[in-house]
Amino acid sequence: MSAANRAPVELAKAYRLLNHGPTVLVSAAHDGRANVMAAAWNMPLDFDPPKVAVVLDKSTFTRGLIEGSGEFVLNVPCRAQAGLTVAVGSTSGRDEDKIATLKIATAPGSVVAAPLVEDCVAWLECRRLPQPALEAAHDLFLGEVVAAWADPRAFSNGRWHFDDEALRTIHHVAGGAFMAIGEAFKAG
Amino acid sequence: MSAANRAPVELAKAYRLLNHGPTVLVSAAHDGRANVMAAAWNMPLDFDPPKVAVVLDKSTFTRGLIEGSGEFVLNVPCRAQAGLTVAVGSTSGRDEDKIATLKIATAPGSVVAAPLVEDCVAWLECRRLPQPALEAAHDLFLGEVVAAWADPRAFSNGRWHFDDEALRTIHHVAGGAFMAIGEAFKAG
Repeated sequence: MSAANRAPVELAKAYRLLNHGPTVLVSAAHDGRANVMAAAWNMPLDFDPPKVAVVLDKSTFTRGLIEGSGEFVLNVPCRAQAGLTVAVGSTSGRDEDKIATLKIATAPGSVVAAPLVEDCVAWLECRRLPQPALEAAHDLFLGEVVAAWADPRAFSNGRWHFDDEALRTIHHVAGGAFMAIGEAFKAG
Repeated sequence: MSAANRAPVELAKAYRLLNHGPTVLVSAAHDGRANVMAAAWNMPLDFDPPKVAVVLDKSTFTRGLIEGSGEFVLNVPCRAQAGLTVAVGSTSGRDEDKIATLKIATAPGSVVAAPLVEDCVAWLECRRLPQPALEAAHDLFLGEVVAAWADPRAFSNGRWHFDDEALRTIHHVAGGAFMAIGEAFKAG
């Protein structure tokens, strides 16, 4: 799999796609259905092999697709996709096919069956690491990153560089209020 | 407990202090020792009662203090503290008393014994929710937030507002490379 704006990220550096705390879109597919949801509650969990943690509420249709398929993608949306991020967070795939209704362009994952949401700035293809007790008690899902990609206009050589305002990652606070990521600086 | 730049945050809105993905300082105290470490890998885990998840490597001295005391604080540092954030992430409390060596000003927690790092912009006092298997396998710790505070110059009425550049939250990528949080906007 390859696309104009999608270049591979080495797995040992995949954590850098999430390390600064962006809100993500979680996508999954199972048994002929696919869906996309928004998730601010995500974080890296390990470096190499890279792992992630994400909170998936029991009410979400995507959670069932992940339980069924054992796979998901964390897509990192950019400022140009803030409206889409709110939209997928405001409806349920249980009630309608969000990908069709919202005309979300997707591409097949390279390793997992879950779709990649086009025009995001990074993608982490993940295999679920089943934790039934943790999932039931805390809605907390763990995954191993099996492939990672980034838009080289925003991330290359292991670093984010946001020359284009529309490509900045977005960080949800509450109720559709976001902050874009800001100025890069070096400390220490 | 109260201080000029520390106002209470209602517990149901405490998740908003972490929702946008800032790097935090984790502080803990036990048996006459106290320590502070940096942790980019943190996230909210629930709304009300608010809970958090944070990754604490086995090598960290702070982890032992949390295991011993069952308490910790997630302090949200601001841009003016980026150097401190790198400094506490570069040495171990096992080898030296970081709080003394780095002259870190602290205040007592209001509910927990762990210290609050002064001049941060938010603080979440937490009680560990013990998960021995998860902690052992994935270094993943869960906590319930029992008190929350924010600097009203940066967060009030449930919203961040960064008029002062020095008070912006910081988001670590790797190796001392940070991004400050940027422009606020409303979507959807």
